[in-house]
Order: sequence, then structure tokens, then C-alpha cells
Amino acid sequence: MTAPLSPSASLPTIRLMPKANARAIRHGFPWVYANELVTDRRTRGLAPGSLARLEDDARQPMGIVAVNPNSKIIARMLDQNADAVIDQSWIEAHIARALKLRNQLYDAPFYRLIHAEADGLPGVIIDRFGDTCVVQANAAWADVLIEPLCAALMAVTGVTNVLKNAAGRTRTLEGLDDVSLVLAGSSPEAAIAVPMNGATYMADLIGGQKTGLFFDQRPNHAFAANLSRGARALDVFSHVGGFSLAALANGAQSALAVDGSEPALVLAREGAEAGGMADRFTTRQGDAFDTLAALRAEGAEFDVVICDPPAFAPSRQSAEAGLRAYERIARLAAPLVAENGILGLCSCSHAVDLTQFRTASVRGIGRAGRRAMLLHTGFAGPDHPQLPQLAESGYLKSMFFRL
Amino acid sequence: MTAPLSPSASLPTIRLMPKANARAIRHGFPWVYANELVTDRRTRGLAPGSLARLEDDARQPMGIVAVNPNSKIIARMLDQNADAVIDQSWIEAHIARALKLRNQLYDAPFYRLIHAEADGLPGVIIDRFGDTCVVQANAAWADVLIEPLCAALMAVTGVTNVLKNAAGRTRTLEGLDDVSLVLAGSSPEAAIAVPMNGATYMADLIGGQKTGLFFDQRPNHAFAANLSRGARALDVFSHVGGFSLAALANGAQSALAVDGSEPALVLAREGAEAGGMADRFTTRQGDAFDTLAALRAEGAEFDVVICDPPAFAPSRQSAEAGLRAYERIARLAAPLVAENGILGLCSCSHAVDLTQFRTASVRGIGRAGRRAMLLHTGFAGPDHPQLPQLAESGYLKSMFFRL
Repeated sequence: MTAPLSPSASLPTIRLMPKANARAIRHGFPWVYANELVTDRRTRGLAPGSLARLEDDARQPMGIVAVNPNSKIIARMLDQNADAVIDQSWIEAHIARALKLRNQLYDAPFYRLIHAEADGLPGVIIDRFGDTCVVQANAAWADVLIEPLCAALMAVTGVTNVLKNAAGRTRTLEGLDDVSLVLAGSSPEAAIAVPMNGATYMADLIGGQKTGLFFDQRPNHAFAANLSRGARALDVFSHVGGFSLAALANGAQSALAVDGSEPALVLAREGAEAGGMADRFTTRQGDAFDTLAALRAEGAEFDVVICDPPAFAPSRQSAEAGLRAYERIARLAAPLVAENGILGLCSCSHAVDLTQFRTASVRGIGRAGRRAMLLHTGFAGPDHPQLPQLAESGYLKSMFFRL
Repeated sequence: MTAPLSPSASLPTIRLMPKANARAIRHGFPWVYANELVTDRRTRGLAPGSLARLEDDARQPMGIVAVNPNSKIIARMLDQNADAVIDQSWIEAHIARALKLRNQLYDAPFYRLIHAEADGLPGVIIDRFGDTCVVQANAAWADVLIEPLCAALMAVTGVTNVLKNAAGRTRTLEGLDDVSLVLAGSSPEAAIAVPMNGATYMADLIGGQKTGLFFDQRPNHAFAANLSRGARALDVFSHVGGFSLAALANGAQSALAVDGSEPALVLAREGAEAGGMADRFTTRQGDAFDTLAALRAEGAEFDVVICDPPAFAPSRQSAEAGLRAYERIARLAAPLVAENGILGLCSCSHAVDLTQFRTASVRGIGRAGRRAMLLHTGFAGPDHPQLPQLAESGYLKSMFFRL
């Protein structure tokens, strides 16, 4: 077994089978699937997260990869330079490059700092909340190298608190544990105030969903908020008030946030108070489908309605059921939109593409007896960059219709 | 022959063939193709731009359409209410609805006011430049009804000058003439100053391409400009300085605009002067491919490079050649981008979809020996709404890579 920080010459070597797409990998595709690798006993015996030198079937070196025999993605490319040394300073270089982009994009240090493969750290997600970072190590190598990763993060960004969030389906798929812990500094004792789109959001980094706040929707919140001046806004699946607080900060007359989670709504109300907007803000805890139907029964009407549900189709097997759920959301939400009002529908399902999602949404709107024009289609913000080779799987899609 | 403004009862009736997709039309698809219509002698004899009542193959009324026997799109749906009267007040209602949206979106009256089918006026494009509108009547009915259309436009918006721009391929496909004229008021004697993204653009509504300015790229200019603070920017196919002036207005250190048209570059320089940014702005007239190669030979380097070419693939037949041209642009532009710089690549080709365009662009970047992450994919701005039923054909795609 090779220690992860040793020079590459001493790393084990693994080899692609002839059928593997070595060319795609050379051109930037970052993954090797288990069925593309010659998996002899030694390869199968590599500890999850081991580093190795990858060779093509002609034994030409391709780079340094991180291996996980427990994952369908058996190897992830770390560096196409087969002599690279994967250590703290290697990680620092990647974080510095990512930080430079976020500094260009945002005035305040609240963003996704590392978005996995595209930022050169496969499987690693790091969200930054001021002087606190939350790390999701969704690949085994990052678990193995978590200490130099944490040290690099602090060295480059100057953050003092680093938390590891080990929840989520991805770690399970990689065969990793779900033990969250404090890697450096301390857990924030209270929710952190996050400025975004003119509003203040309260992010609970310990108890919250995901990493406390969804940065990915920032440009889509901004788009909808810009159309919300003077509007009555409805924010369904609001979480901590993502859309509704941005709408209020941009002059909405009122906003109603609906979510199944009372703790999320508590944070949303705290955010509204922090922004001095609590008088225009109401919340309603409950099932979104039921609440949409109830609002209809009450004769409620809104100028802007946004539905940003959790992934209804997290896997290919659930795609069909997911599309039905998206259609149902559109059908229940459309009647609540005033004439010439805005309906925003979002999907964060990998397994549903934009065309499928749009078709389901338009069918739902049509079944509600409404007609729509499509104003805008948005994706995750630029702090969620993608490798072009993986761009088809861009998960977040937000469409804004005028009815 | 029926006068266009007569009540619908006296209109001729045309009928769908059984194979036509009546259901799609009822659900909002706005076109009837020539091979879907029962074209007897009377139908073939209808004057281009005639109004007619459309029936399905079971003689059920479907609405009022505009007919053009000279077009592959033989009928365009105007109103699904078969008793609608298509007159000035009908047009006014559509313009008023469209205006309301633009007033929500923009602080100043410079935008695409009518974007054809999605704004309820099939084939009609109207761009607004303050108190002047430029109308592209790309369907025969709008030629026939140009007077009430112009009167409605003035009544609803208060503009005093209305120009008709009859240039462009679309009118040819519809069998329409290319005679541009002044419909009301007068032609502006000089270029009009258009505020957008903090910059001032000079739009020549008489001599210019299209309608003098491309409003569609506004959000994409804004995205790139936001990444241009302190940057050396290169704007290839600049037209009147679309990207470069926005970059300068947002703090670019310098901008170089390249275009084949010297008149466009004159306007770009006037815009830079109007914004007090002329000292940071240079232009270079010439072929874009040649100029990119020349800049490479000179060892030029930029932090932000944007290439926004004309449609290389205006039709399906030209798709393959178009993709090669997009790849070539990417291959020539990528070497000019500094490490960690931004490369923006745009396509306004209907016949090339996003995936094809991205693949060609990434291949070109790869052939230049560079690697890219995809930061952002943008489309035309929300003053260019789409019918969801036609959304697949969304023509404008802008991708921003970090190299």
C-alpha cells in the first residue's frame, strides 16, 4: 500500500483496457469507469482513495488518478502530468485558482469555492460562508487527504473554521461514511448571515440541508427578483427563503414562503427580519402540493410564483415519475399566477434534461388552462463551473414563463 | 378577396388535412405548414397576408389565421378565438401587453418591444430606440396591416417615428419585397445613443445591420463585462462595440474591437467617446479569422476574448460548414486568452444546437492546446421571449469558458 503523499514514482500503476476511451480522457474527460480498467488482484486491493499512475492499454502514462475500487467511477483524474506530486501545495494551487475566479465574480466571500471536477478537485465541493468553509468530500481520495486539503484551504483563503459535511447520497455511492465533523476552528454557534442579491439569508451550517444554503440559484433568484418590484410573490419549496427574500429586497409588495421544513422557515423569517422586511413576509409550513391546492381553493393570486423543488428525478429510474411530479407542480402553480404574471419552475434533477423538463412544465401549464411565453432559461451560477465534457449533466435548470 | 379588417364572419375558411397536428395547434403551436392544409383553388388564390378562419379536418373552428400561399408556413395563428376581429385595437392590446413586460424589465425605452410569435404578432419584430421604433414585418399579414400596426404602435407607446426595415432573408422566404421606408415621423438624421449595461451605443437605424443594434446579447454582455474589471478585452465581430463598450464601462483596462465593417467601427468609436472611454478603446478593421491569426503572430494576449460572429449556419444545409467555422474561431481565439482568462463564444445559428456548438467550441479550444471550464451559458435576453412550442429553435447561445 502506498502512502498518499509519496512521490508519484512509487505509486502503483493501473491500466486502461483497450476498449476504454483513452482519447476522451486525454482530452479532459475526468473519469475511468470500473469496466474500463484492467482490474487485477492488486488493483482491486487498492485502498479507497489511493493514488495511482494511470496508463493506457499501450502502457503510455496518462496521469495521476485517485482510485476507489468501491465506486463505479473507479478512478478520477487528478493531474495529467504523470510526475505530479499530489500534496498540500498541489491542492493549494487549485484552490488559489478557484478563489481568483470567485473574487472576480463576487464582492463578498459567500459562494461555492470548489465545484469538484471543474475546479480540479474531483468529487470535492467546498462552500464558503465568510470565514467558515463547508467541505463535502464526495470522493474517497479527499477523505484520505482531508488534512492537507483542510490546511490548504485555510492557507489560501484565510478561513478559520472548516467543517466537513458527510451527509448526502453521493458519499454512499462511493462507499464512504456519513460522519460530519469539525476539521478546524469551531462550528458556528448560530446561523450565519449571508448577503446575496440584496437580501440577507440565514444559513445553518450544522443542522441545515446540504451546506446550509443553495448558492447555485443566485442568478435565477436575481432574474425573478428583478421582475418582482411591487409584486405579490409566492415562493414554493422556499428552504430559507431563497427566492422570496430576494424578491422582497427588490421591492416586492409581499412574499409568502412555503416549505415542508419549519426550521427552514424559521431561518427564512430571521432573514426577513435581518433585512427589515419581516412586515411583508409570511410563511406557511406544509406539503407543497397540498399548499398549492389550498391556496387555489382560497382564491389566492400572485404576480410572481416560483417553485424550486428538490430533485424529483434523482436517478434515471425515477425520471418518468419525476416528470409527472414536475408537470403536477406546473399544473397546480399556474392557476395562482395573475394574468401577465411570472411563473418560475426549477429542476435540479440530473436525470431530466432541459427539453423534457420544459415539455412537462408546459403541459402542466396547459392543463391548467393557461398559455405561456418563455422569458428566460437559467442554470447554476458561475461559481458552479462545469467541465465541458460533463456539461450535458448540468443539473440545475430554471425556466421563467409569463402567463 | 376579403378586406383584412372586415369582421371574421366574412373571412374565407381554410381547413387542415387529417394528417395535420391540430392538437399541437390547439395547444399553442402557431404555424400551419403548406402540406398540412387542404389547398384547393380558392386557398391557393388567397392574397398573401389574407386573414382566414382555420378549421380542423372535422370542420371545427380553430381560430383566425394569416395566410401566405407563397410561404412554407402557409398560415400563422393570430387568435384562437374564431370570432376575433383583427384590427388596430386587437394589435394595440398585444403591443400593450408586450410593453408592460419591457417596462418591468428595463429602466429606459431601448429594447425589443415585439418578438414575433411569443408576443402574439407572428412574424413581426419591433425594436424600440426611445421615440423611434423599427419594424420588421417578416410575414405578409403585417405588410397588409402595416398601417393599423403603425398606428397601434404610436398609440400605445407614444413613439413618434416608425421605420420599416425590409432587409433580411426572412422576407425573401415569405416572398415579400425589400423596400424599407418611413411609416411615420422621420428617419433619425444621426445615430441614436442607446444606453445599455452602463455603456452608450450608437445605433444607425438607417444604414446599419439588422435594426441598428443587437439587443439580444444584453445579458451576455453584462456577464462578460462583470468579469472584465481591469482586463484587457478583445471583442471579435464587434459590430458597434457590443461587448467591448460594456467591458470598458465596467472597468476594463483596454478593449480592442475587431470587425469587417468600418462603418460599424466608426459607430463603436463614437460610442466609446460618448462614454468618455475612447482612451482605452482601439479598433481594427478586417476579416476576423485573419485578424485573430495576426494577433497571435504579434504575441498579443487578452484577459477576456469574446467572439460573436454572424450566423455561420443559417440553414440546415450549412450546419456542418458552420460547425467547422465555429471550431476554427475557437481554435484561433483560444491562444490569445491569458492563463485563467475568459473566452466567450457565441452562435446565432438556428441550425446548430447548443450541444453541437459546445462540442465544436471545446474541440477548437482543445486543438489550440488549451483546457476549459464552462462558467456560463446564456441565451437571448427576456425581451426576446419564446413560445415554448418553438423554444428548441432558440437561436442565440453564448458560452463563457475559463481557460
